[in-house]
Amino acid sequence: MKVSELGEFGLIELLAKIVGGTGSDVLVGIGDDAACWRTDASIQLATSDALIQDVHFTLRTTTWRELGWKGLAVNLSDIAAMGGLPKYALVSLGLPGDTEVKSVVELYEGMAELTHLFDVAIVGGDVVASPIVMLSLAVVGTTQNILTRSAAVPGDHIAVTGYLGASAAGLVMLQRGLRFDKEIAASLREAHLKPYPRVVEGQTLARHGVRAAIDLSDGLVGDLAKLCKASGVGARLFIDRIPIHPSVHTAFKDDRLNLALSGGEDYELLFTSSVEVIDKVKRLMPCPVTVIGEIVDEEPGRVRLFDEQGNEAKLEKGGWEHFAHH
Amino acid sequence: MKVSELGEFGLIELLAKIVGGTGSDVLVGIGDDAACWRTDASIQLATSDALIQDVHFTLRTTTWRELGWKGLAVNLSDIAAMGGLPKYALVSLGLPGDTEVKSVVELYEGMAELTHLFDVAIVGGDVVASPIVMLSLAVVGTTQNILTRSAAVPGDHIAVTGYLGASAAGLVMLQRGLRFDKEIAASLREAHLKPYPRVVEGQTLARHGVRAAIDLSDGLVGDLAKLCKASGVGARLFIDRIPIHPSVHTAFKDDRLNLALSGGEDYELLFTSSVEVIDKVKRLMPCPVTVIGEIVDEEPGRVRLFDEQGNEAKLEKGGWEHFAHH
Repeated sequence: MKVSELGEFGLIELLAKIVGGTGSDVLVGIGDDAACWRTDASIQLATSDALIQDVHFTLRTTTWRELGWKGLAVNLSDIAAMGGLPKYALVSLGLPGDTEVKSVVELYEGMAELTHLFDVAIVGGDVVASPIVMLSLAVVGTTQNILTRSAAVPGDHIAVTGYLGASAAGLVMLQRGLRFDKEIAASLREAHLKPYPRVVEGQTLARHGVRAAIDLSDGLVGDLAKLCKASGVGARLFIDRIPIHPSVHTAFKDDRLNLALSGGEDYELLFTSSVEVIDKVKRLMPCPVTVIGEIVDEEPGRVRLFDEQGNEAKLEKGGWEHFAHH
Repeated sequence: MKVSELGEFGLIELLAKIVGGTGSDVLVGIGDDAACWRTDASIQLATSDALIQDVHFTLRTTTWRELGWKGLAVNLSDIAAMGGLPKYALVSLGLPGDTEVKSVVELYEGMAELTHLFDVAIVGGDVVASPIVMLSLAVVGTTQNILTRSAAVPGDHIAVTGYLGASAAGLVMLQRGLRFDKEIAASLREAHLKPYPRVVEGQTLARHGVRAAIDLSDGLVGDLAKLCKASGVGARLFIDRIPIHPSVHTAFKDDRLNLALSGGEDYELLFTSSVEVIDKVKRLMPCPVTVIGEIVDEEPGRVRLFDEQGNEAKLEKGGWEHFAHH
């Protein structure tokens, strides 16, 4: 059945069933003019991010389920990068009338996988007709301590969670139809289409004294430059210490450093703090943490790369920017 | 200059200046991974709504400034319909690369007009490349008492704020290029493109004992039916009492009742309560309030129309539904 046959209100009712069962503090969920919930005195966080067909994804290589996961994951990652606990999501979905209802159900099932993992309630949104698929999400969260881009200070070490480069490598693989060993191909695909938001990690950082963080969406060097600019500092990156994803090492030997430095969409957390705090949080974090550089008192936003011998290295190209010509 | 020349980050910096100057409870606004603010123990509300080019608006008849106003207004109206005070907005904007920066500035100025009127802070969002213009907003608000669609009970009177039909009449005028007296044309255009969200009115209702409300986005009869369905009740509407907008009376004499009953996008509030409560709030409301019907114990969601002589009348066509074929 097509969504044009089911109609807007029938579709909303169907989708509400998939993501229903909201938490006890939700007073009003899907189906009224707005969602409502009770809150205690706290810090609230909110973020929104949109995915546009053939700009951010293509249905030629992305399943509807993966699209649902990724659309929500990138928003959860933003909340995680602020040290927050994501709680409520609003989904605005644009769909051509001839979209199969089954596809929309799969999209919501992809989101539901993540809402169950992180106890997030989808409390509202809307479904509208659109010539292309458009998925716009807003997520609201809560926290007691926040991480910001503007809190890095000279002397801080720079650390990153997990491994880098696999998402961009996955994109290249899908775009060019490259073939690799089955396990490597699966890990690259998953890195690109099902990124795992570092929600628990972000809260661990915020609770244990870290103050500066950003999530890696546009590429390590570009995002680090943004953090540095916001903090009025510069940075030195030690390229031999970058934790390149093992599958990228194997599948993209020549391009691996470039993919890790500027590939984008890794959704790992980059954070800075004193060496003492980083040593402490390293032991508490449920994922690998690697120190890859240091914050310096230099031109704000300037990021310089150095190899093991202390020689300065050049970045081949910048991170990904919407609208910009490369 | 085109947005592709300025680039995503330059554009975000420019737009942040237009809507900057956030309230004192905002800890982090535009420019970090998420926005943050402090909140007391309360009820929080959230809603989101998207406007898609050539589905919800056309740039042939809508100015960018009007688009900005309307995109925010329809979300504020949803918060108003729950009795909430809108506080924070997130803007996800999809734009073709060849969009003039000047146009985007006007769009934001249109939103800024409303944020100043209602003391709402635009705290975040994103700007993405898109083949068509797409404006998706999420608004978060706060309240102590909520209005819902599910609180109507038999015996309640049904009341509505302001006058109906002018937005749909404005749409017909713009679509067909109809020409009217200058003042009438201006009032119809404004009703359609610059709807005024009933924020103060919604809070007045919630504070003074009203419990059931909905905002009129899809048409009086269709929206009343939704409220009735959610409340498990039916309704009788007295068509001779419908407050038809004066400009619609003049310009659409033959179609005036149909426009008021099912035209949609009036963004007035429809609410139900005991006659005593309605008498009280009528005196407190800063806008006209008209009693137009009553809630009855009948098939849930059934709305019947009656004329002054007590004869049942038929609705010519239903409200507007996305994807549905009329």
